[in-house]
Amino acid sequence: MTDAPMTDRAASTATAGDILSSHLTALAGAFLRALPLAVGEVGARPGAASVVPSEGTADLLRAVRRINGLLTTFSASFEPVWAQESRTELAWLLNLLALEPGYVRRSARLLGALDGLSGSEAEGPGMLAGHAGAPKARALLDRQLTLARTRAHSSVLQELRSARLHALADRMTLLVADAPLAPSADGRAGAVLVPQAAAAFGALAVSVQQLPLQRASTPYGGDGLRRLGAVPSARGALDADAALAADDAPWHRTRVLVRRARYALEVCGRPSAVLDELDRVLLRHQEASEAAVTAATAARTPRITPATAYVLGVVHADQRLEVEAARYAFGRRWPELPPGTEAWLELPPAEGWGSAAESRTA
Amino acid sequence: MTDAPMTDRAASTATAGDILSSHLTALAGAFLRALPLAVGEVGARPGAASVVPSEGTADLLRAVRRINGLLTTFSASFEPVWAQESRTELAWLLNLLALEPGYVRRSARLLGALDGLSGSEAEGPGMLAGHAGAPKARALLDRQLTLARTRAHSSVLQELRSARLHALADRMTLLVADAPLAPSADGRAGAVLVPQAAAAFGALAVSVQQLPLQRASTPYGGDGLRRLGAVPSARGALDADAALAADDAPWHRTRVLVRRARYALEVCGRPSAVLDELDRVLLRHQEASEAAVTAATAARTPRITPATAYVLGVVHADQRLEVEAARYAFGRRWPELPPGTEAWLELPPAEGWGSAAESRTA
Repeated sequence: MTDAPMTDRAASTATAGDILSSHLTALAGAFLRALPLAVGEVGARPGAASVVPSEGTADLLRAVRRINGLLTTFSASFEPVWAQESRTELAWLLNLLALEPGYVRRSARLLGALDGLSGSEAEGPGMLAGHAGAPKARALLDRQLTLARTRAHSSVLQELRSARLHALADRMTLLVADAPLAPSADGRAGAVLVPQAAAAFGALAVSVQQLPLQRASTPYGGDGLRRLGAVPSARGALDADAALAADDAPWHRTRVLVRRARYALEVCGRPSAVLDELDRVLLRHQEASEAAVTAATAARTPRITPATAYVLGVVHADQRLEVEAARYAFGRRWPELPPGTEAWLELPPAEGWGSAAESRTA
Repeated sequence: MTDAPMTDRAASTATAGDILSSHLTALAGAFLRALPLAVGEVGARPGAASVVPSEGTADLLRAVRRINGLLTTFSASFEPVWAQESRTELAWLLNLLALEPGYVRRSARLLGALDGLSGSEAEGPGMLAGHAGAPKARALLDRQLTLARTRAHSSVLQELRSARLHALADRMTLLVADAPLAPSADGRAGAVLVPQAAAAFGALAVSVQQLPLQRASTPYGGDGLRRLGAVPSARGALDADAALAADDAPWHRTRVLVRRARYALEVCGRPSAVLDELDRVLLRHQEASEAAVTAATAARTPRITPATAYVLGVVHADQRLEVEAARYAFGRRWPELPPGTEAWLELPPAEGWGSAAESRTA
């Protein structure tokens, strides 16, 4: 990265616009350096991809997430039409880039769970050890996820050659030189940025208040598997898929807000270790939730054997148990946050206003 | 019950034989009063039995468990051949009486779990809500458990008319008047009974030391579902049923020892609330373990649909989760016992040597 962290003295006289421009210049530069690498990586990868995304793609995702987060949290300091358009385009790229690595991780999670349950790992057998359905269910999941990944790969390849991506790259080039700021960005950094960051924390706190934290922090309540919010389907009948999705949705929303608060803390130069950890816990929640859907969907494949279906039932329940375990971990860690959460922002910045260069994690 | 609790003064001069005879007289009297009621109840119950065993059967089970426990823990104070024969006959009756209520409870557990998972209960839907396999799996489990219960009922009915039961009743009649004591029972109660009770606690402590308590007391480790002890089957292949049984067995053995220690505490007049609680936790462990086997067995029924098998896979995993939850509860509560556990016996008796009449729980 090219910019040096700002000193306390510089920060004390800096305007909000100075701080945001400095961050965006660094992030847009990272975007432009990572983009050709990521395009090359996707093009060079016809078959198997590893669980860890390639470096170019990972760098690009990191920059895109942070630029998008800053434009959202500090939106009052930017020219509104430009900021809104940029966020739409960044969200599009984010979804596009996350698709294929997501399938790779889901495959690793589900096949790993199946291997653990069927005991082909060194840790000892599981409740599906030696079961005739285990290899069949493994092959079915592997086939369906490979197909989904291949489709995602093709659509990513196509979009990475699109005019839309070129336009977004042009937008980022502009950003390196000159972020389109609103007049209010001329104010002092502390006065302008801290209230906006505090609003991000307020939104997070409201979102967490609506979670069933007390139930979640009692282990083995079975809440990932039963006692879901009732959601009658279009036909009026109970629909487990809809009920599970509705039960998980507030947690997914909370994860988005945790990420935003993390990035806001980075801009304000405050340590974000607790939020980093909560983000990881909620990522695990989301990935287990999505893997559970994949297992349930695979169990509806026509003409599978009862043994295969039985194994998929066990895997489905196991992933819902993972969902519950992640909620438990969140429910235990959330109270470690300072009361009111905005309290963090009232601390003086640790080393001046943070620099984008400090942020090495996803 | 007919006997009054012994006073401190009486206890201080009582021999071990006095204390044991007093307990056995009361318990054998309870046995003889409950037996005709229990026989009548079993005979009058051709069809559906409730989850709670009928009063006569419950009283009979309670007396049989305690007499058997006393003859085991304080075996050095009885005429050995008589005590060994009595224990064999009591164990036979215990297994016989426990069979049918066991199936009734297992049915209530499995169908209750299925109803919770499929959301026909008021608490909100579960992950099997609206699933086509749920009613089919419910009917299958209900049919198989009803059949097992009916078979158990017939064999109980037959045995309750057997000469073997009449001989055991005669044995209990003798016990009301005169327990066949060993010469060592002439010693003072404290000197003779406390070391034998302490040995029961020592056996319990050794058994618990061999449990994976540290793993169990970390929630959501997944130990009920995977990382089981490896048990190669006769054919050399991994066998999940055998691995699960081997993983659960040390917990089942511990439960037997918890019960023995409970009954020994009752004789010694010490409070047993913590052990009562641990006994309940391990009963839950055992019932979930057995229910899981029933679900897995049902899933191997020929010609079931994939949807039915899938639901049984979820139910199987759910019951293994219950096994894990019970181990967690045990791992959290065990350290509440006084260090060394025998320490309990070094306390002075709360109200003199306990009386069988005080023990109202199973």
